[in-house]
Amino acid sequence: MNEKLQWLRNKMSSLDLQGLIISNPINIKYLTNIDAEGTLLLTRKENIYITDGRYIEHVHSTLTLFDEIIVYDLHDVSQDDNENFFMFCENVGFEENYVTYAGYKELVRKYKINHLVETENIIEKQRMIKDEEEISNIQKACEITDNCFSYLLSYIRPGMTEKQIAKEIEEYYNKRTDGISFEPIVASGENSSMPHAVPTDRKIQQQDIITIDMGCKVNGYCSDMTRTFFVGNITEEMKKVYNLVLKNQLQTQEEIKDGMSTRLLTKMVENDFKLHGYDLIHALGHGVGMEIHEPPYISNKSDTQLKENMIVTNEPGIYIPGKFGIRIEDTVQVTKFGCINLTKSEKNYIII
Amino acid sequence: MNEKLQWLRNKMSSLDLQGLIISNPINIKYLTNIDAEGTLLLTRKENIYITDGRYIEHVHSTLTLFDEIIVYDLHDVSQDDNENFFMFCENVGFEENYVTYAGYKELVRKYKINHLVETENIIEKQRMIKDEEEISNIQKACEITDNCFSYLLSYIRPGMTEKQIAKEIEEYYNKRTDGISFEPIVASGENSSMPHAVPTDRKIQQQDIITIDMGCKVNGYCSDMTRTFFVGNITEEMKKVYNLVLKNQLQTQEEIKDGMSTRLLTKMVENDFKLHGYDLIHALGHGVGMEIHEPPYISNKSDTQLKENMIVTNEPGIYIPGKFGIRIEDTVQVTKFGCINLTKSEKNYIII
Repeated sequence: MNEKLQWLRNKMSSLDLQGLIISNPINIKYLTNIDAEGTLLLTRKENIYITDGRYIEHVHSTLTLFDEIIVYDLHDVSQDDNENFFMFCENVGFEENYVTYAGYKELVRKYKINHLVETENIIEKQRMIKDEEEISNIQKACEITDNCFSYLLSYIRPGMTEKQIAKEIEEYYNKRTDGISFEPIVASGENSSMPHAVPTDRKIQQQDIITIDMGCKVNGYCSDMTRTFFVGNITEEMKKVYNLVLKNQLQTQEEIKDGMSTRLLTKMVENDFKLHGYDLIHALGHGVGMEIHEPPYISNKSDTQLKENMIVTNEPGIYIPGKFGIRIEDTVQVTKFGCINLTKSEKNYIII
Repeated sequence: MNEKLQWLRNKMSSLDLQGLIISNPINIKYLTNIDAEGTLLLTRKENIYITDGRYIEHVHSTLTLFDEIIVYDLHDVSQDDNENFFMFCENVGFEENYVTYAGYKELVRKYKINHLVETENIIEKQRMIKDEEEISNIQKACEITDNCFSYLLSYIRPGMTEKQIAKEIEEYYNKRTDGISFEPIVASGENSSMPHAVPTDRKIQQQDIITIDMGCKVNGYCSDMTRTFFVGNITEEMKKVYNLVLKNQLQTQEEIKDGMSTRLLTKMVENDFKLHGYDLIHALGHGVGMEIHEPPYISNKSDTQLKENMIVTNEPGIYIPGKFGIRIEDTVQVTKFGCINLTKSEKNYIII
C-alpha cells in the first residue's frame, strides 16, 4: 500500500475508526493520485474507489498494483454491496467539512452505518506538512511567479487596462505551467483599496498605484505572491503606508518558524497597525499547496502552531476605502529555526 | 426590491418559510449580482448580506438602493444580532445541497433556529429558466466557441501536442471573453476513448481521431461544445460509430422541446446504442448557465420535463476502451415546439 494510505490506516486505528468515507476529490488525489469524480472507501480490509464509466479507464491507468485499491464502476455496485462495505464497522468516519447536509443523509441511507463520525479534517491536517516533492513543485511555481513579475514590470505601460494585464499574466503562466492558481488580481488607482478587486477596464495612468496578486500551478501545486508598485511617482502618504506594511511583512518573516503560534503572529501585526490608526481587515496568511487557500490559516481566529515544512503566505495589507491599498505577500516555507522565502521579488518600492 | 428577490419572497410565502439562509455564492450572484464571499439572509422584513472587510467596498459598489439589501461586516455582527435575525420565524430554509454537515450544525448554533428546513434547490430550479439577457450572453459565448473551432481546424497540424492545442484554446478565449468555462478536453488517438481525458504531451499524428470539448464565459454565462474530427483519413469502424452518434444527436435535437421528459430522451439514445452493441456511459446532457454543469440533467436518473428557455447540452458519445471515442455536443435552447442550436459548427465528419 502507498505510504499515504498506510499513514491514514494507522490514524484510523488510533481514532477507533473501522471504516472511512473520503469524498473530497483533493484529498483523494493527495492519497492516491486519482484525479476524477468518485468516492474512496476504506473498509476493514480493503481500499475501494467507486467512480463511473467516464473515469474508469483513466483511474486504471493511474493506479498500480502497489496502491492496493479496488476500482468499481458505480453502476455495478448494488444496494447489497453498499450495505456490506461497512457491515462490521462500529465507527465510520466521514468528511463533515466537505460532505453537504443532503450528502450526509444519503451516506446514512446508502451504507446503513451505525455510527457516522466527524473526522475533523484529519487528511487536511496531514496535507499541511509538505514532503520534498511537494516543496519542489511549489518552489518551481514560485520561481516562475517571480519571473512573471519581472516580465510585468517591463510590460506594463500607462494606457493598458487592468483586464489586459490580467490576461497577459494568464498567458505567461499558460505557456510555462499548468496555468493560474487563481484569477489574478490587478487593481490600479482607487481600485487597489479592495483586497479582492476583480480586474476592470480601468486604464493605467501616470501616478498610479498598482497591486498585483497572482500565482500558478506546477504539477498541481500552487504559488501565491502580491506586490504593490507605482507609476512615475509615489506620494508621501503612500510611502508612509507602504513602509508600515513592509515593516510588518519583514517582522512576520523574522518570526515565522516551527512552534510559532498563528494567532500571536497576527496579533503583532494588528497591534502595530492599530498603533498607526489602521486595521488588518483580512487574514495575515494561509497555507498553500494543492489548494491556493488551505490550512493552516494565520489569523486571530485560528490557533495553530506552525510546523517545519508547512508552506504559508505572509501577506499584511492596509486598505483605505476610496483612496488606495497596499499589500505585500510572499509564499514561505517554515523551517526549524525560521522560514525561507520561496517568492523573492523585490519588496522595496518599485516605480515604473 | 429587484425582480428575482421579489420572486423568491413570494416562493417563501408559498412554502411557509419566514426566513431563508442563502450560502451558495452562485445563487447569491444570481439574485443580487454580488460576486463575493458572504451569506444572504432573508428575514421576515429585511434582506441582509453579511460579508467581511475584503468585500465590503465591492459589495456597496454593486448594489443600488433599489435592491433593498442591508450590508453588514461580519465583525460588526454580535451573537445577539445573529439570534435576533430569525427570532420570530417558525421555519427557516437553508441550502442542504450546498451547506456542509459541519456548516449545518454551525447554522443551528449561530442563529438558534427552531426549524431549519431543506429547500430542495428552489433557486437552482428557477435558474434553469433563462431570461432574455441570460440567453443573449450564452448565445455570444456559443458564437465565439464556433469561431474558436473554425480557427482550430486551420491551426491544428500533426506534431502539435494535446496540451499545446488546449493552451491555444485558452488563449483564444482569454482574448475575447471572460475566459474558459472549464478546462478544455483535447483527446487524440486512443486518448479519445476517455470522455474526461486531460490533455497530455501526446503529439497529433496522421490518421488520428481528435475530440475537443470546450467552452467559454461571457458576462458570467457559459457555452459548451464538443466535436470529434479526423486527421488525413477516417477508418470504416470509426465512420460506423460516428454515424451512429450523429444519428442519435440529430434525433435528440428533433425531440428536445417544451414538455419533453429528460428520461425518455435518454432512453431513446440508450436503446439505439444497445441495439448496435454500445452503451451510453454518461448523461446525454446537462443544463448550462452560470455554471457549466447545472440542472436540468438529461439522464435516466433524472426525470424533469424540459421547459421553454431552458438551455441544455445534447451530447451522446460512444467510447471503446483502448481504441477511440466519439462525442458530438451542442448547447441548445429549448423552445415551445422544438429547440434552437446555439452552437452551430459542422457535424458531418471533418477531415483535416
